[in-house]
Amino acid sequence: MALIVHKYGGTSMGSTERIRNVAKRVAKWARAGHQMVVVPSAMSGETNRLLGLAKELAPSKADSAYNRELDMLASTGEQASSALLAIALQAEGQPSVSYAGWQVPIRTNNAYTKARIESIDDVRVRADLDAGKVVIITGFQGKDEHDNITTLGRGGSDTSAVAVAAALKAKECLIYTDVDGVYTTDPRVVPEARRLETLCFEEMLEMASLGSKVLQIRSVEFAGKYKVPLRVLSSFTAWDIDINEEAKSGTLITFEEDEKMEQAIVSGIAFNRDEAKISVVGVPDKPGIAYQILGAVAEANIEVDMIIQNISKDGKTDFSFTVHRNDYARTTDLLKDKVLPALGASDVQGDTKICKVSIVGIGMRSHVGVASKMFRSLSEEGINIQMISTSEIKTSVVIDEKYMELAVRALHKAFDLDQPAA
Amino acid sequence: MALIVHKYGGTSMGSTERIRNVAKRVAKWARAGHQMVVVPSAMSGETNRLLGLAKELAPSKADSAYNRELDMLASTGEQASSALLAIALQAEGQPSVSYAGWQVPIRTNNAYTKARIESIDDVRVRADLDAGKVVIITGFQGKDEHDNITTLGRGGSDTSAVAVAAALKAKECLIYTDVDGVYTTDPRVVPEARRLETLCFEEMLEMASLGSKVLQIRSVEFAGKYKVPLRVLSSFTAWDIDINEEAKSGTLITFEEDEKMEQAIVSGIAFNRDEAKISVVGVPDKPGIAYQILGAVAEANIEVDMIIQNISKDGKTDFSFTVHRNDYARTTDLLKDKVLPALGASDVQGDTKICKVSIVGIGMRSHVGVASKMFRSLSEEGINIQMISTSEIKTSVVIDEKYMELAVRALHKAFDLDQPAA
Repeated sequence: MALIVHKYGGTSMGSTERIRNVAKRVAKWARAGHQMVVVPSAMSGETNRLLGLAKELAPSKADSAYNRELDMLASTGEQASSALLAIALQAEGQPSVSYAGWQVPIRTNNAYTKARIESIDDVRVRADLDAGKVVIITGFQGKDEHDNITTLGRGGSDTSAVAVAAALKAKECLIYTDVDGVYTTDPRVVPEARRLETLCFEEMLEMASLGSKVLQIRSVEFAGKYKVPLRVLSSFTAWDIDINEEAKSGTLITFEEDEKMEQAIVSGIAFNRDEAKISVVGVPDKPGIAYQILGAVAEANIEVDMIIQNISKDGKTDFSFTVHRNDYARTTDLLKDKVLPALGASDVQGDTKICKVSIVGIGMRSHVGVASKMFRSLSEEGINIQMISTSEIKTSVVIDEKYMELAVRALHKAFDLDQPAA
Repeated sequence: MALIVHKYGGTSMGSTERIRNVAKRVAKWARAGHQMVVVPSAMSGETNRLLGLAKELAPSKADSAYNRELDMLASTGEQASSALLAIALQAEGQPSVSYAGWQVPIRTNNAYTKARIESIDDVRVRADLDAGKVVIITGFQGKDEHDNITTLGRGGSDTSAVAVAAALKAKECLIYTDVDGVYTTDPRVVPEARRLETLCFEEMLEMASLGSKVLQIRSVEFAGKYKVPLRVLSSFTAWDIDINEEAKSGTLITFEEDEKMEQAIVSGIAFNRDEAKISVVGVPDKPGIAYQILGAVAEANIEVDMIIQNISKDGKTDFSFTVHRNDYARTTDLLKDKVLPALGASDVQGDTKICKVSIVGIGMRSHVGVASKMFRSLSEEGINIQMISTSEIKTSVVIDEKYMELAVRALHKAFDLDQPAA
């Protein structure tokens, strides 16, 4: 009775048996009267297999012509899994049709391997939905203005699903994954971690961006921008569980803050050891240095996370930021070759053995002393803080990676996250 | 110095090591000054792997919606191998770009799994060639007028290559495969079989259509229609053999008959045990029966090969034809359900344990008694002939499949094919 988007991750699509289960689940939703759009990832392992072949052929290439071919290559994984899901649905007696991103079309810019969605056409999809078909749309990909295939980067299928849900004004976008929701922190690190029934969009954004691997951050941004209600739930329940029960399971990411007001100050602890820290030291403190440093980094298509500049001393300042560890060498090379000489800075220093730990909660907005409680808790464990960055609803610290688990457990306890919400 | 199209089969693309060899070979041709277009098949085994997954999900489906998804699925094999070849060429320092059929675009009708090419746009490809790039175009696939992906059926990459060569007015289309040319017959059956240096187009057409697996028949039709010089040669020579030697190897399929006049009367023996024989018996002999029978078969997209109707007796006749064995059950069901009642015929009979053996040669045009020599040779071996069909340059017989090897060996010897051409 509503238009619903389902997204299934690679593990959920990992074998024909699992694809058949996905088909049975989707057919159940269709039989309940919903118009169904499904966005599947590639079968688990497939994207790595394909990119592994590319790496065998060209170990160190990374220019645009190469990235274009990587997208041609990697996009086949979702095209195959989408066709297989359509076939499985047809075998269940449910009419179904699959579309590659270019067929919808899903239009993107031309930043190969990291493209951004610009628009989604809904004419073809709506016609099929109105004809009673389940529409499968390949995740992770689209086409640029010259009909080149582009991909959205790892985890891009989440973004595809949310973008499709936004374009079709879907009632809800259900992200089926191998976990049963969003937790206060990673249960592998803190066994007392609890599943959150709801989480507001901003919190989810911070949780996702800080390393809770449940959802790709861009999908959450999209969901926020277009107010797409998003639910994270497990695809490993039996496909035939009651649909009403299923529709309420997992974690709902909402856009209404009111309901949340009485909840905990801090909703969760996020952490991330994929980053590396880079400092440009002895930078003459004058207007434009942030742009001179980060402009060059952005031009090389390297994403920057935390950015910190402290007050200057003797007309010099230190400028620090974090990037993904995979981009560390490329970033430091770039800075040494191109930026340092122009800037007159003295050196580039860095460290890859760091981690970032953050407390996230919309309640922080109206409660003081949350950050200091965090710092005290870390101090009591003897953990030295290397960098601090704060926003309205999160406080992040960079610490030595060997203290990560200790820090997360201490903070989870300090903020009473092991207790059910009031 | 010329525009050349190379086509590489699945075995030639079977591993990253082999793809690297293909890249080195193609780069050699490009360095020699040629504008290069390459049409690769999927990596060997990949198409079967994909279709196997589909079969696990829907063992017995065969409607248009299902076939559409099969094409979505199967076309990914060539897209992946094309991207990998482009990457391998780039790694060799040779600029290269790959295009899926829909990107060129290669336009086809919408007969999923058996589509026919209608047109090929050359603008994008020419621009890349002029910019010094090797252009890779996925074999086997195109798009219909509604942007659905279509495939050309098994072996369709040959057809893609020839069609691309025709559209670009290429100087020659080189079909690289795992054999080193076209033989007088299959060397596994007749060890004395010889490689033919040249073969005229009509002979190749008959050889291909009769089961010499070297080239897909439609590719030969295309080559004939557009006068594309076609060369069949081995991809298992060393990639760095002298390019002039390579350019003369294999078998050239020509369009000039003059050179051939002094050659053998019969060029080769073709055979095929993929067919089944079907007879509609006791058909009232009146105008329109052939259409009534074969029209229904054609509508079901079943390809018919030999068609035989003998003179009528008592106002009744028997109408026989052969189809692929895979289509046998579907064809007889169709005839029994839909055609027999309307036709007033008495029965449908059939046999799948047959084979077709043919002698092919443009010399037959100007020599009498070739067919009778064939029949005598088979008779001397005690082989009973079930059906006969002749054309200007071939004579085919249907016999019990258990006599196939015996018949082929006898004919190969009878027509002196084990002796070098005069």
